[in-house]
Formats: sequence, C-alpha cells, structure tokens
Amino acid sequence: MYTFDELQTLVQENMNKENFIEEPQKLFEPIDYILEDGGKRLRPVLMLMAINLYKDNIEEFMKPAIGIEIFHNYTLLHDDVMDDAELRRGRETVHKKWNSNVAILSGDAAAITAYLYLVSSDDKYLRSSIDTFNKVAMDVCKGQQYDMEFETRMDVTVEEYIRMIELKTGALIAGSLKLGSVFGEASEKEQDMLYKFGMYLGVAFQLQDDNLDVYGDVETFGKKIGGDILCNKKTFLLITAMNLANESQKSSLDSLLSDSNISDEDKIEKVTALYNEIGVREIANKEITKYIDMSIDLLNNLSVSEDRKGILLNMVSILKDRIY
Amino acid sequence: MYTFDELQTLVQENMNKENFIEEPQKLFEPIDYILEDGGKRLRPVLMLMAINLYKDNIEEFMKPAIGIEIFHNYTLLHDDVMDDAELRRGRETVHKKWNSNVAILSGDAAAITAYLYLVSSDDKYLRSSIDTFNKVAMDVCKGQQYDMEFETRMDVTVEEYIRMIELKTGALIAGSLKLGSVFGEASEKEQDMLYKFGMYLGVAFQLQDDNLDVYGDVETFGKKIGGDILCNKKTFLLITAMNLANESQKSSLDSLLSDSNISDEDKIEKVTALYNEIGVREIANKEITKYIDMSIDLLNNLSVSEDRKGILLNMVSILKDRIY
Repeated sequence: MYTFDELQTLVQENMNKENFIEEPQKLFEPIDYILEDGGKRLRPVLMLMAINLYKDNIEEFMKPAIGIEIFHNYTLLHDDVMDDAELRRGRETVHKKWNSNVAILSGDAAAITAYLYLVSSDDKYLRSSIDTFNKVAMDVCKGQQYDMEFETRMDVTVEEYIRMIELKTGALIAGSLKLGSVFGEASEKEQDMLYKFGMYLGVAFQLQDDNLDVYGDVETFGKKIGGDILCNKKTFLLITAMNLANESQKSSLDSLLSDSNISDEDKIEKVTALYNEIGVREIANKEITKYIDMSIDLLNNLSVSEDRKGILLNMVSILKDRIY
Repeated sequence: MYTFDELQTLVQENMNKENFIEEPQKLFEPIDYILEDGGKRLRPVLMLMAINLYKDNIEEFMKPAIGIEIFHNYTLLHDDVMDDAELRRGRETVHKKWNSNVAILSGDAAAITAYLYLVSSDDKYLRSSIDTFNKVAMDVCKGQQYDMEFETRMDVTVEEYIRMIELKTGALIAGSLKLGSVFGEASEKEQDMLYKFGMYLGVAFQLQDDNLDVYGDVETFGKKIGGDILCNKKTFLLITAMNLANESQKSSLDSLLSDSNISDEDKIEKVTALYNEIGVREIANKEITKYIDMSIDLLNNLSVSEDRKGILLNMVSILKDRIY
C-alpha cells in the first residue's frame, strides 16, 4: 500500500517527466507554467489511493491521474480570469503574466489535454471513465456559475451554499475517487460509495478552507487571511452569521458589508469579532466533523480488507484532528 | 441517399427538439442563444453525408452530429471574446450581450456538452470517435493560436497561412467527415481518405471566404465587405500580394497597412485596387480550384458505389462552379 506522501512524490515525479510543451509553444507554455507551481496534487493522489484499494499496480494509471490534475488546473486558469485574481499559490496568474486571451485559449487547450490524458487508459475503462469525467466537468462549471451568481445575492441559504461547493469543489474530488474505483474495477455499488466519500471529503475541505481564511495563519494557509471577508464572499461562516445574528449584530454586520470606506484591517477585525460573538466557528467545525464522520462511515462500509482501507482512514483522521 | 438540403433540415429539426437549457439557467442560456441563430450546420451535415456513404440509418447518429455543431459554436464563442467581435451572423456576440465571464464559462460548458453528445453513440464507436475528436479539438486550438500570433507578424508565408487554416478551419471539417466514416464503419484507409477530403474542402472554403471578404456582396456574404482588409488580416490575398508586389506596389501597400488616418472606404478601395493590379484574386481562385480538385480525386478513389458518392461529388461541383 502506498502512503499519501509516497503517492504525492510519485505523481510529482511522473509530472516532471511529462513534456507539456509542443508547437505552437506559446499555447502550451502557460499550461506548463501553471502545472509546475506545486500544489498538493490532491486529486490524482486520491484517485491513485482509490485504485490502490483494489489493485497493486497503480502506475498503469498515472496518465489519467495526471489528466485529473491538468483538468483541475484548467478550471483554476479560467476561474482566475473570471475573478480577475492576481496571485495563485504565490505566483502571478496566467492572465496577469500574459493576458486574458492567453488564459482563455491555453485554458481551452489544457481542458483538451486533460481529456487526452484521461482516455489514454485501456479501452475497457473508456465508457465508464469518460462518462464519469464528463459529468464531473459539467458539475464544476455549474458550481462556478452558482459561485458567481452568489456574489450579487444577499439571500444565499446554507443549503444553496453547500450545493454550490458540492459542485465546484466536491464533484472533482468525488470524481477522482470514483475514477480510481473504475480503474480498480470495483463494483458499481463501491464506485458510488467512493464518489460519495469524495463528495463528503470535498465539502469538509471547502468548509475547512472557509475557516482557515478567517482563523488560519498565513504560513499554513498560503494566502492572505481575511480575503473572503474583504470581498463579502458568502461563505458558510457569513451565511450562518447572518442567519443567527440578533438585531444589533445583524445591523453591525450589514453596515460592515456595505462600508466602502473602512480599512481592510478594521473590516477583518470587526467581522471576525462578530463571528466570534455569534459562535459561527464552532458551528462550522460541527459541520466539518459531520461531513468527515459521514466519509469515515462510508469507508468502513467498503467491502475492502481493513489493511487496504487503513491509509485512507488514517488520512481522514488526520484531517479530523486538524479541525480547530 | 439524403441530399445536402434534406440533411440540413434534419439537423435543424433535431436541434430544435433538443433542450439545451438546464439549471443553472444562466449557464446554458448563452449556449441556447448561439445555437438558435441559424448557421449552415455544415459540419453535422458533412458528418451525416459521410455516414450515408456507408449506411442508410443515419438518424442513430444525430446526437454526435449535433455535438460537432455545439463544438463549432463553442469555438466561435471563445474566439469572439478573444477577437472582441461585436456581431456573429448579424446578432450580438455573447460577450457583448452578456459579458466576457459569461462567454468564457458558458463556452466551457458548451465544450463539455459537445463531448456529452459525441459519446452518446454506441460503445463500439467510442475509442475511435473520442480519439478523433480530441485530436481535432486540439488542432482547432492550435489554429486559433497561430491566427492570433499572425496578427502581430508581417512575415507570414503562404505555407504558414495554409497550415493555420488547415488547423483552425480544416481540422473540424475533416474531423466531421472522418467521424462520419467511423460511425459508418468504414475501413481505416477510407477514414483517412475522408479526413483528407474534408481537409482539402475546409481549406477551399476558407480561401473562398477570404475572397468573399473582398469580392463578395454583403447579402450573400452575411457580413461587411473588407473586414479583413481593415484589420490587416494576413489572408491568402494579402500575403500573396506582398509576395508578388513590385517595389512601388509594395511601398503603396505598406503605407496603406500602416496608415491610421485613412477612412475605411478609402483603405478598402485602394487595397482592393492593388489586389486587382497584382492579380491575386486569380491566384486565389487557382488555389481554391487545386484544393477542390484534390478533394474530388479523393472522392473518386473511395471504394463506395458511384450513386452513393453522387451527392458529395455534386456538392463539391457546385462549390467549384461558384468560384469567381
């Protein structure tokens, strides 16, 4: 059995061996650029972990695993144009380093590259893998659409928010695990279980990410603290705070959200203070725990020997221990 | 055997029956908008014609045919953002009617929709069809990249230009015909022949389009005459004119291309006069004839009965008669 770290190294080594640049070079250079910037390689690692539940020979599936990572980076590339983001993992985004047209077209080429890598596996996996991938790809688009629509809405519910992150973040993680079970030749029932496991995990990750944006420290989080607060992003924390605020808290929150003269530091400090008063962090932690526990339940019910499940269970337990 | 017109009607009727809009509606409305605007449905018609060379039951393949049309429209959607085009077939482009983010994300969703339609055919066609489609999709991206790079280059050769239109325009037409032969269960040799036939046809179409931009009339062309001249587009005509111009013609052409004060009418008139003097229209017509004749040769060599080939041959002859 491979550990998480071993798989991460294996994915990275195999990505280093790939040559993503062909002619016309300017089309492929931005793809190479976004793929070389590190990142956790979470999705391919999870796919390989799912294969490893059922098979020892996982290296046969390295290309589709890399395809999933390429697809993930394609969505980041286009999302960064739409959000006009300046930095991604500490480096200039593609549309800032080059321009929007480059980000659009190289993103398109990255999406097709992802398909090329995905279908490089044996024909017997083709129908299942392409159908899974197409559905996931469309779900990610839908999630991004909802995310953009939520920017201008003040009445987003917790249910709508969870549905949005299920699509935008959960679907690709769920799809990575399901694809792993397809390549592992698991039964359809087990494929569905791994999809759900990934979905719960993805939602837990995103809620954790929302928490870290407010309560994390810059070093472990990797980006500036309070970014979500500054752009009034309807995260689980903000939606829950608006739902549970008493009248005075609600009016403070409303005026903080609409105050265009307040300094960044002040806004972050005051919104965080309200979050603490209302106790949204604990509610978010409860929600994260709920999703992690549901994912553990699913793992326990997989018809795979306990020692095979061990590494995935261990990974999820570490996640659970890190809730704070 | 179906005629071109019959197939066009059939494709349109089937497209009318499809519901392209699902939740979130704002993601799919622009796709519906660009698909409802007419257009010749050339690519699905050619795919169905290729199937019809080998099979009578073409309706089984209507979904992948529509998928090709969706893919074509996805490329137009993103190209229009990159070119900042205002009009497409007489209607506002998606990024003008909505905005760039809508065009990017709905374009992405359109590309995935194209894949969903393409893979809806029987499993036995899946490997061939997805491999053909992936390659074509990447070629179209490469063509668009070269097209954008040529905008800022003054030394584009005829060979480079032909290669660019092979990728940007030829590949999808060639791919449509090849996919038709895949669904028609033709031999690999015949598949390659139909791919080449489509490539020659695609290049002839694009060269004809370049000619029409200068010598067409607004009604049959569907867009303003002289658009390519106004934006100094390195078409076959301009590249050939620059290659064959004598010193005085070359210096006139150079100053027309760099003159930012000249009126649109004046520029179109004077560049066209130089084209006429140099005789580039006749050279372009010779080139178009060459490509059409090569495509007819390929059709003649297909191992399909003459009456099956008749309709495709007839279509190509009509094209040849229209060269002017």
